Amino acid sequence: MGSGAPIGVFDSGVGGLTVLKALCAALPTESFVYLGDTARLPYGTKSAATVTRYSVRAADMFADYGVKCLVVACNTVSAAALPAVRERLAGVPVIGVVEPGAQAACEVSPSGRIAVIATEGTVRRGAYQSAILRLRPQARVSAQAAPLFVALAEEGLCSGEVADSAARHYLGPMFRGDLPGGPPDTLVLGCTHFPMLAAVIRAALPAGVAVVDSATTTAAQVRSALQQAGLAAQLAQQRVPPLAPDHAAVRLLATDDAERFARVGSRFLERPISGAEVELVDL
Amino acid sequence: MGSGAPIGVFDSGVGGLTVLKALCAALPTESFVYLGDTARLPYGTKSAATVTRYSVRAADMFADYGVKCLVVACNTVSAAALPAVRERLAGVPVIGVVEPGAQAACEVSPSGRIAVIATEGTVRRGAYQSAILRLRPQARVSAQAAPLFVALAEEGLCSGEVADSAARHYLGPMFRGDLPGGPPDTLVLGCTHFPMLAAVIRAALPAGVAVVDSATTTAAQVRSALQQAGLAAQLAQQRVPPLAPDHAAVRLLATDDAERFARVGSRFLERPISGAEVELVDL
Repeated sequence: MGSGAPIGVFDSGVGGLTVLKALCAALPTESFVYLGDTARLPYGTKSAATVTRYSVRAADMFADYGVKCLVVACNTVSAAALPAVRERLAGVPVIGVVEPGAQAACEVSPSGRIAVIATEGTVRRGAYQSAILRLRPQARVSAQAAPLFVALAEEGLCSGEVADSAARHYLGPMFRGDLPGGPPDTLVLGCTHFPMLAAVIRAALPAGVAVVDSATTTAAQVRSALQQAGLAAQLAQQRVPPLAPDHAAVRLLATDDAERFARVGSRFLERPISGAEVELVDL
Repeated sequence: MGSGAPIGVFDSGVGGLTVLKALCAALPTESFVYLGDTARLPYGTKSAATVTRYSVRAADMFADYGVKCLVVACNTVSAAALPAVRERLAGVPVIGVVEPGAQAACEVSPSGRIAVIATEGTVRRGAYQSAILRLRPQARVSAQAAPLFVALAEEGLCSGEVADSAARHYLGPMFRGDLPGGPPDTLVLGCTHFPMLAAVIRAALPAGVAVVDSATTTAAQVRSALQQAGLAAQLAQQRVPPLAPDHAAVRLLATDDAERFARVGSRFLERPISGAEVELVDL
């Protein structure tokens, strides 16, 4: 396993393609193996034990592909199963999305009043809440599950009346002006689906609220982890402006329904994906 | 296996509890074993091969419970896997929800212009479309996937601005007055989650449109199948007014997260369910 090995990207479905897009932009000379466990999605409503069992199987598959680094582009796995995945892939850096998102929120929030929207499981497990409080113990974190945003993003309903009313429904109460201590000044998009709805989300927020999307911050952390481990591919080239995401350098795997993965995933990756490009694998 | 054996009810999650509720009301002297395959939900976006594999495993489990009849309270399984389940449970009547819903729609629609809303998988496989056309070849069927309704029902957002705008989004174009031949006069709720949103759905429909909910029609069909097979429990009592659904006569099984099943399921069954009441099983 050397610097020429691919970077693994693991998600329960297509949501992690927003993270893959950020990785391709930040690391244009790397190659990637993306696995969406579409046969078992969504992870967000499943128990920690079940999510861990699935994630360990996925880790074994990435070991077979010889990845030099694994990005867990799934908030639920990042919150519930990161220690088990790290144990399974001893020696390979494993980077989740919760820590980079929490770190970015702590850095950009002037007041420390931080709001998080995520799936039901991520909110219930308090993943962002505890990650933020570890970094900034005086922070005041509020969290809200926003499962409709997942359905809206998958359906491609990223603008219009339904998306607007869902955004007002979730964000209105979180950012009320009369909250004791004042409303939050920062919102963390704690689910990889949510960047798809960024415009609608911003429109429902009071002016001046910072929106933190963990995809970009995760990509930056992956780059520095690879450099520290001496595993970055062709470092010199990374100083030139990012290339367009290279089709050939991305291998897409799914556990079910390649056609749907391609159709919905095209919107998330912002480039056409054909069904033939998606390899079906069994976990 | 005699008339005292339980009736099996199978769904991918909590949605089928709307069918169980209708069965309890129609067959108050029977006992039921309900299985929600919550570890693998949703079935609606999975391939037919995957859904069939899961359903056959569930059929084996129901055989172990000695059920005298199996109600497939899941539109996706009814559309994709009924022949495989019937083969596996030879000798046990297996009743899906698609046929009864299609039959009821054909009976109540004066014009034969019938609209169907369902999950993505049910619509794509044309399950209701072909079931209706088999019964009424001159019918004109339009179908629309309405995945947001599933998310709304699971979240308990069954009224209010978000649900209203989602109903207008899906139903407005289907019932436009200027459609050639005129708009549909009947709407089939082709997903067991959708009865939860019946009020919001009715409010978005033009006056006079009939709404067919397959739960009640399925329950009636189960009753006559049991009578024909001589397997109905204590028939005489079924002539008295229906009892309130009997807690003791229902056994609830789930493959994951009993607590969530209980919390969300309580709304669907319209009675409190405690987490301790839900047995975790492995398929």
